[in-house]
Amino acid sequence: MFINPEETTSERMSEPKQEGITAKKGQDFDEWYTQAIIKSEFADYSPVSGCLVYRPSGYAIWEKIRDATDLEFKKAGIQNAYFPLFIPERLLRKEQEHVKGFAPEVAWVTEAGDSKLEERLAVRPTSETIIYEVVRKWIRSWRDLPLRLNLWNNVVRWEFKHPTPFLRGREFLWNEGHTMFATREEADAEREQIMGIYRKITEEFLALPGLMGKKTDSEKFAGALASYSIEHLMPNGKAIQGPDFHSDGQNFAKAFDLAFVDQKGERQLVWQNTWAITTREIGVMIATHGDDKGPVLPPRVAPIQAVIVPIVNEQTRPAVLEVAMKLRDDLSASFSIKVDERDYVTPGRKFNEWELRGVPLRIEVGPRDIAQNQVVLARRDTGAKRPAKIPDIKAEVGKELDDIQRNLLALARERLASNVRSAGTYEELKALISSAGGIVQAPWCGAGACEEKVKQETGAKVINMPLDQNGTPGPCVACGAAGHVIANFAKSY
Amino acid sequence: MFINPEETTSERMSEPKQEGITAKKGQDFDEWYTQAIIKSEFADYSPVSGCLVYRPSGYAIWEKIRDATDLEFKKAGIQNAYFPLFIPERLLRKEQEHVKGFAPEVAWVTEAGDSKLEERLAVRPTSETIIYEVVRKWIRSWRDLPLRLNLWNNVVRWEFKHPTPFLRGREFLWNEGHTMFATREEADAEREQIMGIYRKITEEFLALPGLMGKKTDSEKFAGALASYSIEHLMPNGKAIQGPDFHSDGQNFAKAFDLAFVDQKGERQLVWQNTWAITTREIGVMIATHGDDKGPVLPPRVAPIQAVIVPIVNEQTRPAVLEVAMKLRDDLSASFSIKVDERDYVTPGRKFNEWELRGVPLRIEVGPRDIAQNQVVLARRDTGAKRPAKIPDIKAEVGKELDDIQRNLLALARERLASNVRSAGTYEELKALISSAGGIVQAPWCGAGACEEKVKQETGAKVINMPLDQNGTPGPCVACGAAGHVIANFAKSY
Repeated sequence: MFINPEETTSERMSEPKQEGITAKKGQDFDEWYTQAIIKSEFADYSPVSGCLVYRPSGYAIWEKIRDATDLEFKKAGIQNAYFPLFIPERLLRKEQEHVKGFAPEVAWVTEAGDSKLEERLAVRPTSETIIYEVVRKWIRSWRDLPLRLNLWNNVVRWEFKHPTPFLRGREFLWNEGHTMFATREEADAEREQIMGIYRKITEEFLALPGLMGKKTDSEKFAGALASYSIEHLMPNGKAIQGPDFHSDGQNFAKAFDLAFVDQKGERQLVWQNTWAITTREIGVMIATHGDDKGPVLPPRVAPIQAVIVPIVNEQTRPAVLEVAMKLRDDLSASFSIKVDERDYVTPGRKFNEWELRGVPLRIEVGPRDIAQNQVVLARRDTGAKRPAKIPDIKAEVGKELDDIQRNLLALARERLASNVRSAGTYEELKALISSAGGIVQAPWCGAGACEEKVKQETGAKVINMPLDQNGTPGPCVACGAAGHVIANFAKSY
Repeated sequence: MFINPEETTSERMSEPKQEGITAKKGQDFDEWYTQAIIKSEFADYSPVSGCLVYRPSGYAIWEKIRDATDLEFKKAGIQNAYFPLFIPERLLRKEQEHVKGFAPEVAWVTEAGDSKLEERLAVRPTSETIIYEVVRKWIRSWRDLPLRLNLWNNVVRWEFKHPTPFLRGREFLWNEGHTMFATREEADAEREQIMGIYRKITEEFLALPGLMGKKTDSEKFAGALASYSIEHLMPNGKAIQGPDFHSDGQNFAKAFDLAFVDQKGERQLVWQNTWAITTREIGVMIATHGDDKGPVLPPRVAPIQAVIVPIVNEQTRPAVLEVAMKLRDDLSASFSIKVDERDYVTPGRKFNEWELRGVPLRIEVGPRDIAQNQVVLARRDTGAKRPAKIPDIKAEVGKELDDIQRNLLALARERLASNVRSAGTYEELKALISSAGGIVQAPWCGAGACEEKVKQETGAKVINMPLDQNGTPGPCVACGAAGHVIANFAKSY
């Protein structure tokens, strides 16, 4: 996977066959997913194992996620910056837990031109260490705080696990927020704001629900006091971590001497958070909403929201195309519209192609429609078709797109809700994980040994722990001691 | 330079002194430039020699350049994509001229985690080779062309020359356009469109004029048939290359077997172009418009277009702040506005700080102004101050900002025009380069030996050759043989 398949020139020179997705999502999810990414032209393999090429329609989705998220960050007063790609090894080693977590996956630059470097440079797996080394000079007094920075960049983690497009790779795109506060209270208060932004983006744009919660100590970010995540559920019953937020406390501040003079004139260390949303969300989104025909894009992140397909023969083509272009011009101020005017492809094949690409709405326009002053709207999510009057087209298209957006989220929520189950005993937990999959909520004593035992014996780990814990949990499913918390157990990517 | 200066904790813990720029632009330009970047907080040094930290106000300028340029690209039908950061060594070596040009500056990843890689990976200095290796599969027929891709990303060129913030560094941000056409004519026609976009961005946004022209063979892009550039003139009399465009012909197509079937069913190689604008423009812009107080930002790229400074004492503060906030609310729909409400900094110091940061317009508001239903507008470019009635504030601010934008471009154009001189003989050329600096237009026979002779003896190279050549040039200034072209000679960054 991710390896550029060899192909002979004569193979390339032949006309491509029209080919849709051959795997069924419900039967062979992994194969379906790969085809849904590659055949729909969201991404392609590259000659570097584990590194993905984002084709225009895949990258356009990322631009939409980035721009929507960035708008929220800016409203919250967070400022974007850019820090170097390279981190000197000595800096990466300054915080012990951090380097332990990341060193096994670091890509190292050791040579430049013909010279060997005196010190290895890490290609950033994340930028904490270089940021803190630099911003130390920017912070002197409590008046310089809070300092809330965000970066949109690329990072490299040389994973040796099986790569999967968007979901797991050696380079990905993300935001990394790095914020510094004078007090723990202010730092903690940021969590709700940032996780609220991530929830808004995942739900309202990507139509992706998730379970928000706190990570266990064994799963938290290397160097953090505590980590929080939104966990999504994939169609194959496995959980996958979405956006996350880390309370770093003063760990990095200690290591990097990030101090300020407080209002009483005393020297204090700052309190820090870090947080991220990544290109992984594109993969989760495609996996969640797609069907056997391919991806189904939520309108708010779709590069093309509606495609106009003229239904014509040679005689009717000029008149119908004129109407199609007029429709596009009317709609383009509000929506992202494409007219498929190719004269060498049949309408039926166009339908298949745009379904394969996940375009939310198809607008069919032919001579008979025009005679009735109407077009036909065909929804990608339900397949439903209905006529719409041309004078009302803007409102009608808007209505359908809103409804598709709502419907995709509602369906995903239903599927998530019906795949979150409760277990009171170890036997129940084991049975649910091995039969139904999904997420199982069960009481846990909080001991790492119990977490590890469940993982070893069932394959399910604690993906996170709900923030709202209602009532007292029963006894720990693993050891029978008093339960501390209801935890979300699941097999996970 | 670019090295993080050591600083003790006690130094950091003291309150910073208010310190403006101490160097005079006209006397010690290099020192002035460095202070204008660092003290104005557009950028900072990093622990990696030659790699810059873009602080929020510097990065915000890049976001504005990127967004304005991207809008033009999208209007032209160009699509964004993302390709991997790493390029396997064997790919980089596929085009001979290309690898010869870039290999001396490549940063190599040779290790990942604890493993030594089997093949070195180049951190992309530019992405031609990996793009062409991948898109070969996307192009089969003439119907797949043109394919016009663009990337916004970071690249690394491990230069061993002296780094200068924004102007020359080992990592920079840019766009790299990569386009493929069925015919040479179509490929060539793109040049005017793209260079037109770059001219629009540099002139209308950055207020930077430049000389457009063709590069000589010795200065063209490694692997291209011909390169074109916009050359700016720095205040120290040296030229600096701005955005560029490369006609790659079929060089890369041959090396990467980038072929398609044409309308007659015959196999053809594609014709290619590549083009770029980089973060260097930020530095040229700051250098060009700044004065002894620091940078002067053109309003269309200024992160803050106008700052409102309340002129208050303890008694008048609440009432004046209320008016200031109301002004901000009224203006914020159209402009980027900040109210400096700090109560621990004097208005005079605020004036200095915002001048140092290059904010184009200051709006002063005090009790006496309010009594007259007015504010005072103070321009950063001219220093001129005038009252403006509060009910007309939106129109008045818009007028001043437009005027500042126009004025900065007009001044820069005047300076450029007055620093482009003509020479008919070698003596004249030498005298002009050594006395006045700037750009000298002189006839050249086109021989590399003459270009090299001038460079060795005067320090000036052919920065480019104007596209419009009026009339027949005189004899070559270097050898006296028939002149082929009027060339732009200059000392250059």
